Parts: sequence; structure tokens; C-alpha cells
Amino acid sequence: MGDTEFIIEPGRQDIVIKREFDAPREIVYRALTDPALISNWWGPRRYETIVDEFEPRAGGRWRFVNRNAQTGEEHGFHGVFHSATPELIVQTSEYEGYPGVPALEWMELDETNGKTRVTAVSLAPSVEARDMVVASGMEEGARETYDRLAEVIDGLKTPASSAGF
Amino acid sequence: MGDTEFIIEPGRQDIVIKREFDAPREIVYRALTDPALISNWWGPRRYETIVDEFEPRAGGRWRFVNRNAQTGEEHGFHGVFHSATPELIVQTSEYEGYPGVPALEWMELDETNGKTRVTAVSLAPSVEARDMVVASGMEEGARETYDRLAEVIDGLKTPASSAGF
Repeated sequence: MGDTEFIIEPGRQDIVIKREFDAPREIVYRALTDPALISNWWGPRRYETIVDEFEPRAGGRWRFVNRNAQTGEEHGFHGVFHSATPELIVQTSEYEGYPGVPALEWMELDETNGKTRVTAVSLAPSVEARDMVVASGMEEGARETYDRLAEVIDGLKTPASSAGF
Repeated sequence: MGDTEFIIEPGRQDIVIKREFDAPREIVYRALTDPALISNWWGPRRYETIVDEFEPRAGGRWRFVNRNAQTGEEHGFHGVFHSATPELIVQTSEYEGYPGVPALEWMELDETNGKTRVTAVSLAPSVEARDMVVASGMEEGARETYDRLAEVIDGLKTPASSAGF
């Protein structure tokens, strides 16, 4: 399992996450944008993710609900896509428990030698909003999300491509 | 003509613009979101604004082209709306001459005693991108845009409402 790197500098409005996946960009992009796969990786493992809307294209909407199967506790998240291409995905993201101005999130996918480096930035509307997200335990949840995403990506690789052909 | 206030602090990623309009929020919101009015206020006076798309609702798209009638020079801008209500409009904004990660823009409308205070924030993906926008002469263009918007708003007020009834 690869490492997920977090860059969270004091006084800034952004959270930067970096992760390398052992798969070509096309596979990583498919894992990120296939609606049928979202619930297999989005969010911490202890929550079920219900995909209410998911249209990864300019002007498309998305809405996910995280549901704790034990307690029934639910958390909704939604936003719109500004763009979605294998090189760059840009979207807004609003936590429905804290409505108002959303974060701007973007993900760059760079492929080198059959591996894909993902750089994801979440830009909050203020330093305070960014710090609140960090204090909520975001890092633990995101680490789990990226590990789960790596598992989904591994599952998409054919025997031929994983052998380097 | 009222004053447009700019808050542009060094090392930050945002530009904050404040302006008070002598009209209730409903009128200001109408000026901001009526597609037929956009070309009367959006952009500097020396450009014609062509409205290609404009759907002020969650997931709606917008695209404007600024055209210099003398030189034929054109500048395209586009984005998506995250939300659009009389209290808060949130959208992305990409200048097509500099494609990639857009700015996140939001506008809060607060009404007090029949006047509406607008606070508009443009949050760039980096300090460098913010500084590039500032260096491009944004302030002069935005000042003109807000003056033109005030004129459109004045035109929407009925004699009764402008007399304070």
C-alpha cells in the first residue's frame, strides 16, 4: 500500500494531498469517475456511501450521503463539476452540515512510466474553514479514502497491464 | 455614484470587493441574474459582452465573451454555478486565455433599510494566480463593472421605490 502525503501549512486556506497509484492514468480516472465504483472507495470504511447524483462533466452535479450503518447517522455532501478530464478534475464541495460557501477542489493526474501521481487540492473559503476541516479528523478519513481508492484501482487492472505489458 | 472598496492583501489568494447599492436585495439580485441585463453591466465599457450561456442555478453554466468592437479582440470567460439565491451566489470562473483551475467566486447580498451591501470574493487557486489577475488591471475593470451595475439597478427601481415608499 502506497503512502498518502498531506501538506497542511498554518495560515493557509488549502489542504494538498499527494498519492501515487501503480496504474496508468486512464485506470485511475475510471476509478474516480465511474458512478458504480464510488461507494467502494469514497469516505471512511465505517460509513456506507450512497450516491444520490454523480455527473462528472462540466456543469454536472454530485451528491453523496455517508451513512453510519450502526447509528443511522448521515452526512450529506454535494457540489458541481467545473470540468472533468483525465488530466484535471475541478469541482465544488459543500458539507451539508455546514452550508454556505463550498470548497473548491481539484485533482491533477500525471502519468509517468505507467504510474499515476495524483495531486488533490481542497481550497476552503477561509483559513478558519480550512482549520475546521482539519480539526474534524479529515486526515484520517482521507487516508482511508485513498487506501480504498488504491484497492479499487488494483481491482481494475487486468493481469496483462499489471504485468507491465 | 457609490464607492467600490477593494481589499487585496499581500500573500493572500483572494480579492474582496464591497459595494453598497441604493436598492433592496430583490432588485440587486434581479440585475445580477437576469440574462437580458448582463451585457449592460458585465465587463469594462470598452468591451461588448456577448452572453453565450447563463443559467444562474445550482449546476447551471455560464459563458461570456468580451469583445473589443474596434480591434475585434475577444476574451472568453466561463464557469458553473454552485448555487444562486438572493442571499448568496457561488460560481467558478475561468479566463479562457489562462485555462486550468478556475477561481471560486461568491457574492453575499445583505439588505438593511432598503439598501443592499454586496461583498464579492474571488478566490484564486494560488497567490501567484491572484497576483496575476491584480496585475492585469482587474481593479479598474471591476470598478467600471460595479458602476455599470449601479446604473442598471437604478434603472430597475420604480419611481415609487426610489422615492422610498
